[in-house]
Parts: sequence; C-alpha cells; structure tokens
Amino acid sequence: MTVATPPSLPLNPRDLAFQLYEVLEAEALCARPRFAAGSREAFDAVLDTARAIAMDRFAPHQREQDIDEPRVEQGRVVTHAAVKPALAALADAGFLGATHDESLGGLQLPHVVASAAIAWFEAANVATSSYALLTTGAANLIATFGSDDLRRRFLPAMFAGRCFGTMALTEPDAGSSLADLRTTATRASDGTFHLTGTKIWISGGDQDISDNIVHMVLARIVGAPEGVRGISLFAVPKRHVAADGTPGAPNGVALGGLIHKMGWRGTTSTLLNFGEHAPCVGELVGAPHQGLACMFQMMNEARIGVGRAATAMGYAAYRYALDYARTRRQGRAPGEKDPRLPPIAIIGHADVRRLLLAQKATVEGALSLILLCARLVDDEQTAPTEAERSEAALLLEVLTPVAKAWPSEACQESISHAMQVLGGYGYAREYPVEQFYRDNRLNQIHEGTNGIQALDLLGRKVRQDDGAAVRVLVARMEATVARAHGRGGDLATLGDALGDGVQRLVRTTSVLTGDGACGDPALALANASVYLDLVSRTVVAWRWLEQALVADDGSARAADDEARDFYAGKRQAAQYYLTWELPRTVEQAALLQRLDATPYAMRDAWF
Amino acid sequence: MTVATPPSLPLNPRDLAFQLYEVLEAEALCARPRFAAGSREAFDAVLDTARAIAMDRFAPHQREQDIDEPRVEQGRVVTHAAVKPALAALADAGFLGATHDESLGGLQLPHVVASAAIAWFEAANVATSSYALLTTGAANLIATFGSDDLRRRFLPAMFAGRCFGTMALTEPDAGSSLADLRTTATRASDGTFHLTGTKIWISGGDQDISDNIVHMVLARIVGAPEGVRGISLFAVPKRHVAADGTPGAPNGVALGGLIHKMGWRGTTSTLLNFGEHAPCVGELVGAPHQGLACMFQMMNEARIGVGRAATAMGYAAYRYALDYARTRRQGRAPGEKDPRLPPIAIIGHADVRRLLLAQKATVEGALSLILLCARLVDDEQTAPTEAERSEAALLLEVLTPVAKAWPSEACQESISHAMQVLGGYGYAREYPVEQFYRDNRLNQIHEGTNGIQALDLLGRKVRQDDGAAVRVLVARMEATVARAHGRGGDLATLGDALGDGVQRLVRTTSVLTGDGACGDPALALANASVYLDLVSRTVVAWRWLEQALVADDGSARAADDEARDFYAGKRQAAQYYLTWELPRTVEQAALLQRLDATPYAMRDAWF
Repeated sequence: MTVATPPSLPLNPRDLAFQLYEVLEAEALCARPRFAAGSREAFDAVLDTARAIAMDRFAPHQREQDIDEPRVEQGRVVTHAAVKPALAALADAGFLGATHDESLGGLQLPHVVASAAIAWFEAANVATSSYALLTTGAANLIATFGSDDLRRRFLPAMFAGRCFGTMALTEPDAGSSLADLRTTATRASDGTFHLTGTKIWISGGDQDISDNIVHMVLARIVGAPEGVRGISLFAVPKRHVAADGTPGAPNGVALGGLIHKMGWRGTTSTLLNFGEHAPCVGELVGAPHQGLACMFQMMNEARIGVGRAATAMGYAAYRYALDYARTRRQGRAPGEKDPRLPPIAIIGHADVRRLLLAQKATVEGALSLILLCARLVDDEQTAPTEAERSEAALLLEVLTPVAKAWPSEACQESISHAMQVLGGYGYAREYPVEQFYRDNRLNQIHEGTNGIQALDLLGRKVRQDDGAAVRVLVARMEATVARAHGRGGDLATLGDALGDGVQRLVRTTSVLTGDGACGDPALALANASVYLDLVSRTVVAWRWLEQALVADDGSARAADDEARDFYAGKRQAAQYYLTWELPRTVEQAALLQRLDATPYAMRDAWF
Repeated sequence: MTVATPPSLPLNPRDLAFQLYEVLEAEALCARPRFAAGSREAFDAVLDTARAIAMDRFAPHQREQDIDEPRVEQGRVVTHAAVKPALAALADAGFLGATHDESLGGLQLPHVVASAAIAWFEAANVATSSYALLTTGAANLIATFGSDDLRRRFLPAMFAGRCFGTMALTEPDAGSSLADLRTTATRASDGTFHLTGTKIWISGGDQDISDNIVHMVLARIVGAPEGVRGISLFAVPKRHVAADGTPGAPNGVALGGLIHKMGWRGTTSTLLNFGEHAPCVGELVGAPHQGLACMFQMMNEARIGVGRAATAMGYAAYRYALDYARTRRQGRAPGEKDPRLPPIAIIGHADVRRLLLAQKATVEGALSLILLCARLVDDEQTAPTEAERSEAALLLEVLTPVAKAWPSEACQESISHAMQVLGGYGYAREYPVEQFYRDNRLNQIHEGTNGIQALDLLGRKVRQDDGAAVRVLVARMEATVARAHGRGGDLATLGDALGDGVQRLVRTTSVLTGDGACGDPALALANASVYLDLVSRTVVAWRWLEQALVADDGSARAADDEARDFYAGKRQAAQYYLTWELPRTVEQAALLQRLDATPYAMRDAWF
C-alpha cells in the first residue's frame, strides 16, 4: 500500500497572516523600540524561512522517526540520522534565540511572530521540534535567573545549538506533586552542589544530537524546608563546562533507561539518575529555595507551548483530511438513487462537512488563542504603559491553563474527526493521521495534567488579586460583544450568544469563589475540570467572534472571490463555534452553580 | 521500567451477574424450550470457563502480539505463536458455536449468556478474539442462507476451529459505498462462480492459524443490475473444500499485502486479490442479487459485536485505572498544607474520582446496553408470543446503530480518562492503557463508520413502519420512568430527568421525520450524527435508571456492606449519567429541532 501524497502545507499561510496582521495587528509592534527594526516584510521572511526549513528538513523524517525511534546502544542513545541536521538548520536560522536580544545572538523577534514561525516546525515534526523548544526554555531560565558566569558559559552554546536543554522536575514517586521531590543537593566547598536522585519522563534527557545537554533540575538543598518552599533550581550539565564554555569530562548524570511512549516517539523520554556512580555537580540558578518560582516561568512558557504543539498537530491533521475529502470520491448525495452516476467527492456529504467544519473551528480557534497569548507576552514585556503591561500579565495568567488544556483536548477530538474523514485509511500507519492522534494525546498529560491546570485556574488564577484577572478577561470579552452589537444583523446575534456566555462565566465564577456560596473549599474545587472547560469554550468563542468581526471588515474590502471565500469561511466557523460549541456551557454552568457533588461524594468502596 | 501488576480481572464478575440475572433476568430464559437444559449454575459455569481461558490463554500475549505483530514471510502470514493454541482452547470449549444447536455441535446457549462470555475474551485480548468472532459470523451466514451442501461441508470445520471465516465487503474505491462494488462473479458450467476483484481491510483475510479460511464475499454476477440491487453473496474458501469437508488445493485468493494499523495489531488486516493469477471459485450463498440482505444479518450481528468489543476494552481500562488509583499515592487533600503528612492514594482526589465515576458510568452503561441487545436477539428468536418476538425485533433494529456507535465513542473517552488517571504511565507502552486507546479507536470506523450508523438510524430505522421501532423504544423507556416515579424520592427525580429526555427524543424525531417540518430531506439528515448521540444518551440513561431501580431492590435485601456498597455504586453512577451526561441532549435537541444548517451550508471554497 502506498502512502498518499501529503497536502501541500500543514498550516494555512493565509490564516497565519490573518491572525497575525488582521486580528493581532503584529505590524503595530514595530512602533515599539525593541522591534523598531521589524516590518511586515521582515516578519514574513522569518515565517517563510521557518516554513522552508520545516518542510525541507523536519517533515521528511517525521514518520521515519516514529518507526525508527531512539534506542539505546551500548549505553548511548541513538536518534534518527535526520534529526541533527534538521535542528542545525533551525539553529543556524536563529530560531533557538528567536525572541532574545540581538546582542546575545538572538533575532529579537516579537513572541507573536516567533510563535507562528515555531508552529511550522511543530506541524511538520513535533518530536524533532521538541529538542529545540526545551533548549529555548532552559536558555530563558538561565538568561532570567542565572549568574553572569552561567549566562556567559551556557547561552551562546545553547543559542548555537551545541548545548541543548531539558526540564527535570518529575520523580518516579512524585508525579504531579512537586512538594514531595526527594532529589538532594549538597553544597560543596567551591560553591557548586552535588546532586543525588532520580528524575523520570525527562524529554530529551539524553540524545546524540548536541555536544552537551544542560538539565534544569529541581532539588532540595540539604536542610531545606519540607514541601515546595524548600525546592531550588540547578543547572546540571551532562558534561562539565569550562570557564570559556567548552564542554569537558562527563558529569555524574546517568541514563537509567528510555520510556517507550504511545506517540511523540522521536523525542527521547528518559529516566535519569544523578550522582549514582559518579559525583553529579550542579550550579544554583536563582536564590536557594526559590526554585519553584523560577521554574514556573519555564512552565508557563512550556504550557502555552503545549497548546501550540497541539494546535499545530490538529491543524496539520485537518489540512490532510481536507485534501483527502476533496479528492476521495465515494457515494452519492442523499436521495440520489442512480448508481450509474459517478461517486461524488466526500466533502459533498453533509456529515463530512460537519467533521471538517468542527476541525476548522477548533484548530483556527486554537491558533487564535495561542497567538493571542504570544502577543500578550509581547505586551507584558514591551507595551508602552505600565497599565497595559500589567493588564497583559493578568490576562496571560488566567489564559495559560486554558491555552495548555483546551487545545490538547479539542485538537485531539479534531484529529479524531480527521481520522474519521479518512475512514480505514485514517487508522492505517501508511497514512499520517494516526500518528497525530498518538502524538497529540501526550499534550493532555505533560507540563501538568489538565486536571492540574483546572486546579491552577479555579484554585489560584481566578482568586488572585481578588479576581482581577477574570475582570480583565471579562472586560475584553464584553468589548468584543459591544462591537458585534454595533454591527447589527447576524454578528449582533453571535454577540448575544457570547454575551450570555460571559454572564454565565461571571455568575459561575462568583458562586465558586464566593464566601457564602460554599462552606467546603474542596467541594468548590471538585468540579474544577468542568469549570476549565466552561472558561475555555467561552474564551474560544470570544476569539471566534473577534475573527468574525475582522472577517466582516476584510470581506467589505475583499478584491476577489478567493478573498471573499476566505472571510466567508471565517464567518461560518465562527457561527459554528458560537452555536454548536458554546451552548455546552449552559449545562456546565448549571452543574457548577449547584455545586454538584456526584463525583465528589463517590466513595472508594462503591466503585 | 517494569510493567505494573495487572489488576486481577478486566471485567467485574459481580457486575456481570447483576446485569445478567438481576437486570435482564437471564435465568427466566430457561423456561423456554430451547434453553430448557439451562440453569444459572450452567450459565455460571460457561462464564467461568470463558474467564479462565481468557485469562490463561488470551491475556498473556495481548501486549506481545501488539509488538510482534503479524508479518508476511515468503508470501505467507506469520502470527504470534500463542494465538493458535488460545483459539484452539476457545474452540474446544465450544464457543465458536456457542448459540448454535447442540445437534450441530453448538452449546445452544442464550445469546445474552454467550455475549457475556465472549466479553471476557475481548477484554483479555480483542485481536485474538476477532478471529473467533469473524468465524462465528461467517458460520451464521452459512447456517442461515447456505445450501445443505455448504452447511455440511463448512459448518463442522468452522465450529471446530479448523476453518475460520471473514467478511469481505469493502473495496479500495468503494469504502462505505456498497453500491459501487466492482468484484465480479462469472457463472461456471458446474454451478460455481469465478470471482475477480480486490477487497481491502479484510480482517483475518490471511493467517497461519486455521487449516482453511472461508471468505464471505460480496460481488456482482455478470449482467447484474447496477447498485446495491445487483450484489450477491459468495463463500470463497482459501483452499477448495471437498464433498466431505476436507480442504484441498489452493483457491485463487491471493494476499495483496497487510495493512498496518494503529492498534488491534494482532488481527491481520489484508488486501485480497481474487482470481488474479489463478481462478478463484466461489459458491453462491442465498439467492442471486440478495447478497446485501444476507450480509446485513452478519453486519447487524457484527455491529453489536463492535459495541461489545468497545465495552470490553473500556471496561478493562477502567478496572486497571481503578486499581492504579487505589494504590498510587501522590499529593494531599486540598487545604492540607503539611508536607510531612504522607501522600494519599490518588482516588482521594476529587478529579480522579470524577474520571473514575465517568468511566464506571460509561462502561457499565455500555455493558447494560450490549447485553440488552443480546437478550433482544434471544427474544426475537425464542420469546413465547409473536408479539413479543416482533417487538424485540423492532427494538433491536433501532438499538443496533446505538449499540455500535455509542460504546465506540464513549468508551474511547473512558479509556482516555483511564490514561489520564495514570498520567505519564498511561501514555507509556510499558503500561497497558495506551494499547486499549489505540485498539478501541477502530471501533468508530469498522463495520460502517459511526456517520453511516447515524444515517442508518435517522434515514432508515426511525422511519420504518411509520416509526414503529421508536414507539416501542419510547414505551419501554416510559415504563421505566413510571416505575421510578412509583418509588418516589431521588429515584423519582431521576425518573423526571429521563422523562424529559424521552420527550425531547420524541419531539426531535417528529421534527426530523415529519413531512411539514422540512422540505429538504438532505437537511433533515445533515445532523444525523447529533441525533444518534441524542438517542444514545437517552437510551443509556434509560439503562442506568433501570439499573438504579434494580439496585434499589437489591439494596433493600442486601446481606452485608459489600453488597450495599455495590448497589450504592450503581445508584451513584446512575445519578452521574442522568445528571452529567443526559443534559447534553437539551442543546442537541434545540440544534436538531431548529434544523441547524451551519455545517450543511458550508461550502468547499470556504474551507
């Protein structure tokens, strides 16, 4: 059986341009000093470069790497031969330091542009991309919290792709519970620390791609307080790094084994032992016992990154299914009984269009959400006024669990729809969709399971600063509703739908966080996952109404049918999301507002 | 990394007994002449035998077979060595002819008992079980429609496991569209036919397990009408079968290749070429051009079988996750800040209990639905009065698409919940849950995609006989509602919920099938998948209210805490389903009743 021809591109460049320039007005960022050298032309050139490298270097080995997954030979990890040159091309083009200062070897791009560029790599090959993203994340930690010495010794090698990074939090007996970390750091006379302990699920924890690896490790300094207040962050290289940044002798980090995952197989997942047979030297990053606060920077970034990876995979599967539905001919229209007529392309079947429209609404809605978050990072860092910066920071706080969890779930459903469009071919490894289905499923688990995200949202984010973040979010959504009302007609009707949704969100939040409504804090948190889904649907509906408004503007000045069709598709997808997906929040709000205790009251012995 | 200890059993014997004897009153079947030799003791012995063979012979190679999947060596298929002895044990115990006459070598069991027994094999190893179920399905076709000669030559070998069966419908260019089948049958002078053509996705289409294989093939006799009215059914053996049933020289059936699936890897999926290099002889089964009607018998049986397989896999994943949640200790209760306290078992976390309760409600609800269908097959065939038999047949008609589609989707979500309970371990191939996730996903596709099931339900089943089948279903559901009202209290409240759901179903069906409501039949069918989900949720809610009523009776006479806990769990899961899952039909009914045209109106150019 031969493999079907892949569709031309796994993302739609027209949609990327729409999101970046029409919805998020990325060009306006060039008015800020940090991006003064930028321009739409420059941004487009970056996107074109990313797309070219992604398609030429990343896509070709995506499936091969899934079959020929990394293995251990004589104690050393062996990865697919195409991974190293692909990452070298990415590094050479500057993407490891895409948002960093030009003075440090970065491209000094806005996050919103860099994020769109990285989506190309993830859509083409998420496993190979992961090595790069983990490196950027680790570099960001060292850049923000590391000493000058650390920055000097590590960052140039990291931005150049000679030293990759990892994020080593989880331990076998303390999955999501960082309070129970047991890895220990003992202070040595030279100011370094000796680490002992075991970490699990460390992505990229060993490989044969880069000259060196630096693990960002959470551990407890001997004598530190119990719980999360006693955790410190360390940079632990695979090979010791000299004062000039040159890697030398091996450090005491031993590969305990590879874990074999359902998908995402090209990225090694490792068990690492620190200081087991040889001393393992680490250097403190940030202040002692402040490790969790430092790591949260990387985690927040990684969480939005998870959402972006899910979006990219969902998008790629959608594009493949769309091509398939346009070319695969089967069956006839309902009521057409003449078997002598030729079969129609399956996109002509209503249920296939439903599956495709649901995918479009999901993946383009997810892209809109993810790029908004990236734009908020830009605003948090470079908006002209303190008020704008702090508002962006608040909004980002409340949107981070949404941006992590919602795309991971909705895009999984979307990929499942893509599989259904292909039928048996969707389930066959000779076609690409099943790999997206396996790969993306990880996104609901890593960087904090979606259950953890729900607790983060309801237990922390919506309560912080007396609910300030939710108020900002609600104000933004209501502004969009008001604009929709101003247009009248169908847009006003969609505005009504979102307006009702926002009111449900406000009322539900008030019940769940109010003093009087619930005497039992555990009960108020028990249905946090439902609350996260309610907030997510409302937020994505908001992004769709925004897109519909921008499409309305665009349609009015569209020059040709192709442009008008594009905006009409946006309009239809917005209607789909607001009338098919948002109404789910009606029953969710009812369930949450009555503080339903059905799962909460379930007893172990009753199962 | 070591594999965790599997839970004791993938199904709960107590629940099987509850469904069979308390809910479906299987023992009462022994009053019917066909089952006069039966008894609860005899049925239990059958279930015990199935369980023992499943655990001893099927479970041990379930994962090995996923890794060491069937391959082609020198043109011949090689399967895992444990498959053949496992199936021999199943055949020796009589399960290939479980429901057939004792006079033909069958066990003459009620379908409801046989179905529960087969669920053990499917929960332990669905891939190996498939060879058996395909054989039983093919044997049923030959038994019902075959000539005496065919029956004599094939059935004994099939029931003994020497000759396996397949179902060869699909062709590469006509996936779900049987009207476009192109395989041709030319009548030979001896009354047999020579077949030429290609079939794809033929499960068990080649293997090294049985001495022979008989393919039940749909093909067109030369000169037959176009479309589905020109399709005939043929028995096409891999090796010619002599008058005494002995297999001889090879027939012209050539293996074109194996398809490599995401899951369910132990069952070969084949491309078969008929009459490519050598003549391929087939024998007509049933009348010419009546092939589709014959095949529908096998398909209906296979569709309920798909639902049972999904149920078994979902159940096994749930049981694994439950064991894991009871033994894995991590984190502390909300509000408990003391990190010196030991971590709690994760079943103590509300969100984990939610995931487990959702699984319980899904898999036990699915089991209840599937066993009801099996019981209806018994009633259709052996109920004392014609009225009962025809009512059972009607109910079965309308429930078949529900029994196929709903478990395949709901159990996939349930397995996804199991994976989430395990976190990273759920995603690792060192643990069993990810395989269930890959294996079960096929169930939404094969034996007619769920989109096809939706069209079958709304386009055919609910319209037949002026809606007679839906009326029977509604009457049964309303009877359950009335009984719940008779109990008062919480059960009456749940009865109200189902009563409202039934009214939504009635009203929605009336709108979608009524003459006046919709001038466009294609539009009425456009949202058939939503309608299928609405009907499914209502039906499963009904099965849960039934279980709650029976549990209420059981609880009143429970002898100990263990019994009371079991019934309390049923009660809580019923409440979960009726208050968390059924309310979804409110928005579905609104969408359907307004004949929403959002996906329907979407145009190709807008994507």
